[in-house]
Amino acid sequence: MPQHGPRDLPEGDPFGPATLPYGVFTTADEPGRPRVGVRYGAHVLDAAAAAAAHGSAYAGLLDRPTLNPLMAAGRPVWRAVRAEVRGWLADEAHFHPLDEVTLHLPFEVADYVDFYASEHHAGNVGRIFRPDAPDPLTPNWKHLPIGYHGRAGTVVVSGTDVVRPRGQRKAPSDEAPSFGPSLRLDLESEVGFVVGTPTELGTPVTLEDFREHVFGVCLLNDWSARDVQAWEYVPLGPFLGKSFATSVSAWITPLEAFDAARTAPPERTHPLLPYLDDSGAEPGGIDLRIEVAVNGETITRPPFSAMYWTAAQQLAHMTVNGASLRTGDLYASGTVSGPEPDQVGCLLELTQGKGPWLADGDVVTLTAWAPGPDGTRVGLGEVTGRIVPAHEH
Amino acid sequence: MPQHGPRDLPEGDPFGPATLPYGVFTTADEPGRPRVGVRYGAHVLDAAAAAAAHGSAYAGLLDRPTLNPLMAAGRPVWRAVRAEVRGWLADEAHFHPLDEVTLHLPFEVADYVDFYASEHHAGNVGRIFRPDAPDPLTPNWKHLPIGYHGRAGTVVVSGTDVVRPRGQRKAPSDEAPSFGPSLRLDLESEVGFVVGTPTELGTPVTLEDFREHVFGVCLLNDWSARDVQAWEYVPLGPFLGKSFATSVSAWITPLEAFDAARTAPPERTHPLLPYLDDSGAEPGGIDLRIEVAVNGETITRPPFSAMYWTAAQQLAHMTVNGASLRTGDLYASGTVSGPEPDQVGCLLELTQGKGPWLADGDVVTLTAWAPGPDGTRVGLGEVTGRIVPAHEH
Repeated sequence: MPQHGPRDLPEGDPFGPATLPYGVFTTADEPGRPRVGVRYGAHVLDAAAAAAAHGSAYAGLLDRPTLNPLMAAGRPVWRAVRAEVRGWLADEAHFHPLDEVTLHLPFEVADYVDFYASEHHAGNVGRIFRPDAPDPLTPNWKHLPIGYHGRAGTVVVSGTDVVRPRGQRKAPSDEAPSFGPSLRLDLESEVGFVVGTPTELGTPVTLEDFREHVFGVCLLNDWSARDVQAWEYVPLGPFLGKSFATSVSAWITPLEAFDAARTAPPERTHPLLPYLDDSGAEPGGIDLRIEVAVNGETITRPPFSAMYWTAAQQLAHMTVNGASLRTGDLYASGTVSGPEPDQVGCLLELTQGKGPWLADGDVVTLTAWAPGPDGTRVGLGEVTGRIVPAHEH
Repeated sequence: MPQHGPRDLPEGDPFGPATLPYGVFTTADEPGRPRVGVRYGAHVLDAAAAAAAHGSAYAGLLDRPTLNPLMAAGRPVWRAVRAEVRGWLADEAHFHPLDEVTLHLPFEVADYVDFYASEHHAGNVGRIFRPDAPDPLTPNWKHLPIGYHGRAGTVVVSGTDVVRPRGQRKAPSDEAPSFGPSLRLDLESEVGFVVGTPTELGTPVTLEDFREHVFGVCLLNDWSARDVQAWEYVPLGPFLGKSFATSVSAWITPLEAFDAARTAPPERTHPLLPYLDDSGAEPGGIDLRIEVAVNGETITRPPFSAMYWTAAQQLAHMTVNGASLRTGDLYASGTVSGPEPDQVGCLLELTQGKGPWLADGDVVTLTAWAPGPDGTRVGLGEVTGRIVPAHEH
């Protein structure tokens, strides 16, 4: 039974009434009944119970084990449910302390795409991986948001242990590849966008329609085995260096919660084709400030506002060939890195490719918030994971 | 109501009792009730109806709109159901003529991975895409089966029209990229493997366990927009050049139907790490003969037996980092090309990169069969698709 109300919301808490992210939780009483909850401060509102108690027309979308039915319902429903949730906050009957519930992967992932949208990150990585290239950015970089598909089946919820992957690696000086646990395990701090409203095959999504399709935003750690990746990725891209695990926050913050944090992306240095040209549109960036901590110590503060390509441009690009969207499609920004050395989004950049890398037992935690209305903060749920030793097979 | 029995099976028909592939179909009478069928010659056995009529314990796995429940049930069940299906062939009450049913995408695709396992294909493509490289194969090619994730949400069933994709392309001589319908639309003839039994995260599948996890085999056309692909694919691999559509056959032929067609893969020229070393194992290749026709005219005959990497090696590699499998995971061989000019698996190779490419209205059809027991043939369902003009947006 709920013991506490939400009255104890501390000032500046990034999970106040301007945030209201959705997740899926169970209680110790009913471990077999995952359902939709809304985070409020250090509490979880049982949205399924509140909807039933208040006779909401949307109760059937909330007493579900994933967010997918709500996500598929479309933007008018998202707005209506959010308004109802605000009303339910006054009723203290349906709250659980956050530390007394279990959080689950909040949605069924359909396809997972990872972009590469920070010019600072791409430049830094280009200099490390391709030191002899005349330009650290490939010629296409300023013309399209580069992306690739990742493994949807290994997206895990924050808190899931990450087993150190094993694989092939070969340094240029090695005669032959060797096999074993990755020696260069890295994190990548990213922001993920979750698709709600699907599309038909053959139907591109324009920049203007972005908000009709994207349900919400999460924080994401795209764990990377740099030694595996470096050996495998030419010519078809990253595969096993990434596919062992991708962690997402347990909370999906609705897109509209970031309305007050919109910001213009960096000035574009190359002309854009019309389907990507957002020069006349509302600002497509989000002033989201990420903090990356290892074992409780902050090591870098990547600014999402520095991303060259916006989430709307990524969606427009991803669908311009007619590729359809499904409810549950997840696409991530790529590593968020700013221009300063203490703003880079992964250890590869932070250590200039030299390490140290993640050690067994290390706990990596990403947090993020953006300015909300009236001096408030709007948070993304944290994404955390502990490295556990490679299995012996 | 079924009108014909299966007695009229012509000699040499690749869909005889040694094949018995599974699909999902509807009839005009009951368009809202997709269910599992088995192809037998030019007929479809209504497996759901036959199971019910014969009191099969597996009826609940067959009266379903996808093969996923059957696929998830595991190899002992697959063998038992196949034995029962053989028995039901004698009962003529549950057959429909193939041309009177509608075939559907037979399974829900979880993750889709595409490999690059033909040495002939990789060599030919390397020479065309990277003419200045000293070796057409990248240094990793002989050490691991190169693969990448594709878009699961745009896998479509044979017979689905393929809309010519639009996208960015830039020839080296162009000053800037341009946008429009792909001018270099290609086919890729491939063989797909469908995962039934899932695994837990952190659990690699060994070469020996391949048959416990792979349910069956399909034919696959990995449509490719070569101009889009060439401009986008460095450094993170193919994306929009492939993600607009991937066609699969409507029939999934059980893996064990190819037992008589097993063949040794080409001799390995480089030593393999233990997890990929199949030198002591049963032959991992399949003597499957593919025919590619455009508008009814055969243009090439790729031999699957020429593939350097086997499906078992691909599965072992894909999971060696601990990546889990889900029921419905699909992985494809990569373009099947043999050593001869009339054995290559795509127009890029067939025309040395010069075209002509696929035109609007072209119909591409792939068929394939392998030797079965006692001189029979074991077929894969055809995969066909017609190119329709790009949409105007």
